[in-house]
Amino acid sequence: MPDVGLLTPGADLAPGSPAAVTDDVAVLRAMLRTEAAWVRVLARHRGGGGLDAVVERLAGPDAAALDLATRVARASADGGNPVIPLVAELRDAAGPDLAPLVHAGLTSQDVLDTALVLVLRDAAGNIRADLRRAVTAAARLAEDHRGRPALGRTLAQAAVPTTLGARFAGWLQGLDPARAFLAETAEALPLAYGGAAGELSGVSDLADGDPVADCDPLALVEAWGDELGLPVGPGPWHVTRTPFVRLASALAEVCVVLGKVANDVLQGVRPGVGELREPAAPGRGASSAMAHKRNPVLSVLVRRSAIAAPHLAAQVLAAAGLAVDERSDGAWHAEWPALQQLARHTVASAHAVAELLEGLEVDTDAVDRNLRAGLPDVGRAPDVGAAAAVVDRVLGRFDDSAGGPARGRRAGEEP
Amino acid sequence: MPDVGLLTPGADLAPGSPAAVTDDVAVLRAMLRTEAAWVRVLARHRGGGGLDAVVERLAGPDAAALDLATRVARASADGGNPVIPLVAELRDAAGPDLAPLVHAGLTSQDVLDTALVLVLRDAAGNIRADLRRAVTAAARLAEDHRGRPALGRTLAQAAVPTTLGARFAGWLQGLDPARAFLAETAEALPLAYGGAAGELSGVSDLADGDPVADCDPLALVEAWGDELGLPVGPGPWHVTRTPFVRLASALAEVCVVLGKVANDVLQGVRPGVGELREPAAPGRGASSAMAHKRNPVLSVLVRRSAIAAPHLAAQVLAAAGLAVDERSDGAWHAEWPALQQLARHTVASAHAVAELLEGLEVDTDAVDRNLRAGLPDVGRAPDVGAAAAVVDRVLGRFDDSAGGPARGRRAGEEP
Amino acid sequence: MPDVGLLTPGADLAPGSPAAVTDDVAVLRAMLRTEAAWVRVLARHRGGGGLDAVVERLAGPDAAALDLATRVARASADGGNPVIPLVAELRDAAGPDLAPLVHAGLTSQDVLDTALVLVLRDAAGNIRADLRRAVTAAARLAEDHRGRPALGRTLAQAAVPTTLGARFAGWLQGLDPARAFLAETAEALPLAYGGAAGELSGVSDLADGDPVADCDPLALVEAWGDELGLPVGPGPWHVTRTPFVRLASALAEVCVVLGKVANDVLQGVRPGVGELREPAAPGRGASSAMAHKRNPVLSVLVRRSAIAAPHLAAQVLAAAGLAVDERSDGAWHAEWPALQQLARHTVASAHAVAELLEGLEVDTDAVDRNLRAGLPDVGRAPDVGAAAAVVDRVLGRFDDSAGGPARGRRAGEEP
Amino acid sequence: MPDVGLLTPGADLAPGSPAAVTDDVAVLRAMLRTEAAWVRVLARHRGGGGLDAVVERLAGPDAAALDLATRVARASADGGNPVIPLVAELRDAAGPDLAPLVHAGLTSQDVLDTALVLVLRDAAGNIRADLRRAVTAAARLAEDHRGRPALGRTLAQAAVPTTLGARFAGWLQGLDPARAFLAETAEALPLAYGGAAGELSGVSDLADGDPVADCDPLALVEAWGDELGLPVGPGPWHVTRTPFVRLASALAEVCVVLGKVANDVLQGVRPGVGELREPAAPGRGASSAMAHKRNPVLSVLVRRSAIAAPHLAAQVLAAAGLAVDERSDGAWHAEWPALQQLARHTVASAHAVAELLEGLEVDTDAVDRNLRAGLPDVGRAPDVGAAAAVVDRVLGRFDDSAGGPARGRRAGEEP
Repeated sequence: MPDVGLLTPGADLAPGSPAAVTDDVAVLRAMLRTEAAWVRVLARHRGGGGLDAVVERLAGPDAAALDLATRVARASADGGNPVIPLVAELRDAAGPDLAPLVHAGLTSQDVLDTALVLVLRDAAGNIRADLRRAVTAAARLAEDHRGRPALGRTLAQAAVPTTLGARFAGWLQGLDPARAFLAETAEALPLAYGGAAGELSGVSDLADGDPVADCDPLALVEAWGDELGLPVGPGPWHVTRTPFVRLASALAEVCVVLGKVANDVLQGVRPGVGELREPAAPGRGASSAMAHKRNPVLSVLVRRSAIAAPHLAAQVLAAAGLAVDERSDGAWHAEWPALQQLARHTVASAHAVAELLEGLEVDTDAVDRNLRAGLPDVGRAPDVGAAAAVVDRVLGRFDDSAGGPARGRRAGEEP
Repeated sequence: MPDVGLLTPGADLAPGSPAAVTDDVAVLRAMLRTEAAWVRVLARHRGGGGLDAVVERLAGPDAAALDLATRVARASADGGNPVIPLVAELRDAAGPDLAPLVHAGLTSQDVLDTALVLVLRDAAGNIRADLRRAVTAAARLAEDHRGRPALGRTLAQAAVPTTLGARFAGWLQGLDPARAFLAETAEALPLAYGGAAGELSGVSDLADGDPVADCDPLALVEAWGDELGLPVGPGPWHVTRTPFVRLASALAEVCVVLGKVANDVLQGVRPGVGELREPAAPGRGASSAMAHKRNPVLSVLVRRSAIAAPHLAAQVLAAAGLAVDERSDGAWHAEWPALQQLARHTVASAHAVAELLEGLEVDTDAVDRNLRAGLPDVGRAPDVGAAAAVVDRVLGRFDDSAGGPARGRRAGEEP
Repeated sequence: MPDVGLLTPGADLAPGSPAAVTDDVAVLRAMLRTEAAWVRVLARHRGGGGLDAVVERLAGPDAAALDLATRVARASADGGNPVIPLVAELRDAAGPDLAPLVHAGLTSQDVLDTALVLVLRDAAGNIRADLRRAVTAAARLAEDHRGRPALGRTLAQAAVPTTLGARFAGWLQGLDPARAFLAETAEALPLAYGGAAGELSGVSDLADGDPVADCDPLALVEAWGDELGLPVGPGPWHVTRTPFVRLASALAEVCVVLGKVANDVLQGVRPGVGELREPAAPGRGASSAMAHKRNPVLSVLVRRSAIAAPHLAAQVLAAAGLAVDERSDGAWHAEWPALQQLARHTVASAHAVAELLEGLEVDTDAVDRNLRAGLPDVGRAPDVGAAAAVVDRVLGRFDDSAGGPARGRRAGEEP
Repeated sequence: MPDVGLLTPGADLAPGSPAAVTDDVAVLRAMLRTEAAWVRVLARHRGGGGLDAVVERLAGPDAAALDLATRVARASADGGNPVIPLVAELRDAAGPDLAPLVHAGLTSQDVLDTALVLVLRDAAGNIRADLRRAVTAAARLAEDHRGRPALGRTLAQAAVPTTLGARFAGWLQGLDPARAFLAETAEALPLAYGGAAGELSGVSDLADGDPVADCDPLALVEAWGDELGLPVGPGPWHVTRTPFVRLASALAEVCVVLGKVANDVLQGVRPGVGELREPAAPGRGASSAMAHKRNPVLSVLVRRSAIAAPHLAAQVLAAAGLAVDERSDGAWHAEWPALQQLARHTVASAHAVAELLEGLEVDTDAVDRNLRAGLPDVGRAPDVGAAAAVVDRVLGRFDDSAGGPARGRRAGEEP
């Protein structure tokens, strides 16, 4: 029976979930989209229609797509990857005229890597939108509480006064660079190409005299990239895994900077502290054992993902470091589930933090009470040093660096 | 749309896959089984029937179970775990008489941890059966090729002669202890219990005068363990994660010793070596780009899992090291997907190696040719030192330690 | 310039540090001890003295040992491991009579792995002694506070009452099995042997007619193990890395269960909580910026190691899963620094927790105050369910399982 | 006794080792340099000399520096970091006039983080220089063998013909972006500042009427950055660990792309392949057991580091994701040894690959022989598709992107 995301709350795969852009059917459809785009490129030189109707029949309706994904997944053990059985189905469905063009000159890795790129770019799109919301909300929080004195806590102890604004500016300082790094990395994700051994010889396997076989392979590849809206990198990257290494680093960075926000909220809501409250929502934070409780669920799940992400990124990096030959014997395969899981964690985490920061409740009385309890000698006008100037500096820097004022940026608008 | 295991070939979730024992529906059903067993325990003291019919209706038919899992997964973001919405559905379905007993005195972690224990024990059962096959096959290979001279390779270079038997005995030497460690660890996986804060106070929340509320909570817990066939450990382990830490270590150890087998096969099948061939099977090893190729797919997927497993185990360990208070705020949640993925990798890997070793083809001509090419001065009767005695020692040791002769052990029989 | 442990406080390498048993000089001396023991075994069959005087001259005085280690480390880049240059120095120093016996029939991996075993066994000895202290102290804490009501905290929120004793019993429940697992694993660490390709042919390379060359190689190996007090496993384990895999799992398990203790202390000392205090010691907990602060340094460093350990263990496991051929081409080398670092973290962590638990200060007024503040309706006699019975069960279980009462066990006495 | 790098060949700490820029004494001196620069900044406003003579006395001579590092390391357990005892020594040595300025307004994290930045920037400088050499050498190899047909190997099997040049161009394609990412990341490493809680209030703790206490703290910080040649980021990053997260990602990326080179060389030198040979050097590649062997030591050590690096980077990321409050209670401390180890692995790895690629020997006869043996039907003029065009494209792309021709770039010259 298929998985529905039961063990990754916030990244379930039910319709409408933000994580659904990474699900197996999304990957399947991206593979089909990749194959169809290639056929379109080839068909241009040869005349004749494309695969669009075939793809629609195979994977347009959800039930058909899920069925196909199930069959393909089951059959993938034989060849070690899902492209092989998918191509078989696709050729069968394409009919005798188009079948020779299907996957002609490609290798499975071209298709699966490109499909993962498409899916990961979609995931990055969702993440970036939520990070923009989070950045805007964090900037607003920093500005609103710019000078509000608060107990600075270091190494689990009361330290000296700081301001709430400085703490929130610290969040912003992590969020915005992570957003920018992800944006840059995701936009650079390239088409995967190269054929059997990265040498692009396969197109000439079409029958002699076929007009396609005479084309410049690199020109075909460029056209393929155009069809899919993907850049074409310097060369094949079957075993030069920089694009996925860099993306894994960017996703993990997002998860860990979101983790800082969650950790602070989880300390802020604890009994004896009470400075922060997660936004309320019907049904959220319920406990199966205690009716009176309101658990900080958003932060808990974000912290969960901050714990998980470094391991998933490390799996992608480790696999990349084991790449060998023209295509790897296991290292490639180890990347896929890690990338899928890592993208889901990041999608879920960014989504949760956007909501968290837009609705974060600050109990300024508790903030004040805790400051005075933690530092009894603090006096009426605590010395918060240059905390407010630091807030201004952080807000100003992101105004500059992100091409528009973080402060005044509208929700959902990327700088 | 749900996942079907498209990105973990060999661990797909189609019906009949060995990995299906770990799927979300299996977890869901294990949660229901856990809840139903508890109601049986309580109902004994109070009279009245159980939940079996309700559970059958909710999750007996596959389609119903998948629907329920989807709803529960979607709703789990609100409380941060799937037990909360599942209990709500279960109480609704139980009717007014039984509803007060459903989940009475439990906390979500009791149920989810116990359900994971049940699923992981099933997975361990599959893994152990396949490891027994692999151990038997490795012992047979070691015995069959006990004295066959072969090129010893060290640091990627020709070293000195050894024997094929010694190499295969090395496989056995990793496989059998990993099997035994997993067996011991899986059998020790305990019931999870403790209620809201590990203090078991919840049962008394039933209405005054209810006969259940007067029972000894620890006696109820023991009865619950009996119902599920699970040992009851010294105390609640909500935040003392030794059972899952130890299991993660055992699963990862299995994956890495299987990795050694795969690595050797992958070197043995390479062009210029050709000493080994994976067992042939219709359709296996096909390439989407090259009809002539027969890829060593079993080994590729096993190596994949050996690359992945340490990271997944580390995620479980890292989470355990962040446990805090009476129940953790994110560290618990980070364990679930890692345990599920790790179990799947191990199931797939053990299954593949059992098949691989039972059908491994050895080209003794190539072995001989490579020895003479690699060490031109080797002579007609290469000095293989004590390699054969080492094989005997290894075979003998596992005869002793595993309670029965590894050599003569029948397939599928655990010592 | 050499490292002194500047970046691993608590595991510095100054004289008297518990971590010093793992330092490079300790490894160097263990390599020399390993080589010398082998020469003793060979010399028995041949007459003549041993290497003891030579070893004493080379590495007896600290300054000489450090010099030798520095030269060897520098020269190790050429062969990829420190044994090669060490053997060259040893042969030079041994004189013409003994030189042919030095390292005769061994491979570097025999020596380095055995040396690491010796060092890791010493480290495990230190860890076990400190864990015994920690277990005893945790048992005493659990008993002393067996029924003391305390605020149960779950998911960062006030939950229900529990007892301090139940929290402390949870620590015990993690500590004692980790101690036992480490003890069992460390005692099983075997001699490494096998020669160039695990085939033990090398001894016969001694000159014809040499009485050693006629000996049974496995009998020589057994005698070698006796000399070093190490068990001899079923076969060579150059590429069957179970001993180090299992040890890495055991060390990491120790670090993560110690992490739970630290996490609870770090929450317990926070401003607004104040239930716990680390034992005071002159100079401990000072801050470079704030004279008034007393930082919970022991817990901070233990938490540090709980964060680090899973990654280091994963490195050992990952390397094991990449073992190949008769000896690995990089995977072996990746284990060494991870094992050394992991052992140090564990030594430091166990040492810190022993001290922490033996002197932990509990502010029962704060415990009571926090309970009433967190659960205002709790009443005068909070319902703590079966918490006290759980404590008794845990204490009793470790009495049974550990062969002596955890409660009454004297400090430093292993059950 | 101190460590000398015995267990990290190629990254030993003997004088002249490239890894020595990361040793504990280097960190110690960087801490002193950081403190001295701050005193210079303060002294400007107050008159009077600086700490240079004091620092020279304390840590100028190697023996004194090592002694001081040892004392500081030993004493660091009390406060949890080495800055606290270092400042005590520095104040003692500074004399009554300067002592009040020493560390005035700073927190230990300002100093240790800045010192790590200085050391890591030095390490990155070494790495970048070696990567430039490697890029140039890889470009030359790709150009020299641009059209040379070679056996393409995929999933451990003979696939189709490709060219040597295409394989080497793949190396270049990983190396140059990794170099550029590291350069960008290392140059952005900022000064750490903020004082006790990131609020910069500490300077005002100087005596009333002191001219320094009236200065703008952020202006002082900017001056401090100028003194050290470090950029000053938007705000304090005590708990916003982006700089170290990004650097860890960049270092790990370098290690894994270097790993691909090593993996290919290790396959290329294997018996039965023999296409490649590492550059010979006196004494290199010796075996302690087999005089005839020449081990591919450079590649072995590079592969070692590619296995290790992802775990070390993950440790840094995991720690960053656990940052909390104004300064973290263990997560900060977990970064230090991982950063140090990771930098060393990368230094050693880049150095080895530079040497490896500058002297790599290609046996074109073996290349040709293996192609024909692996693909018997290949014919006299193998179809290598667009492999040569791919090489041109890769070379051309890096000409463009790196600001100068990779092909013609002189060794040691950064584009």
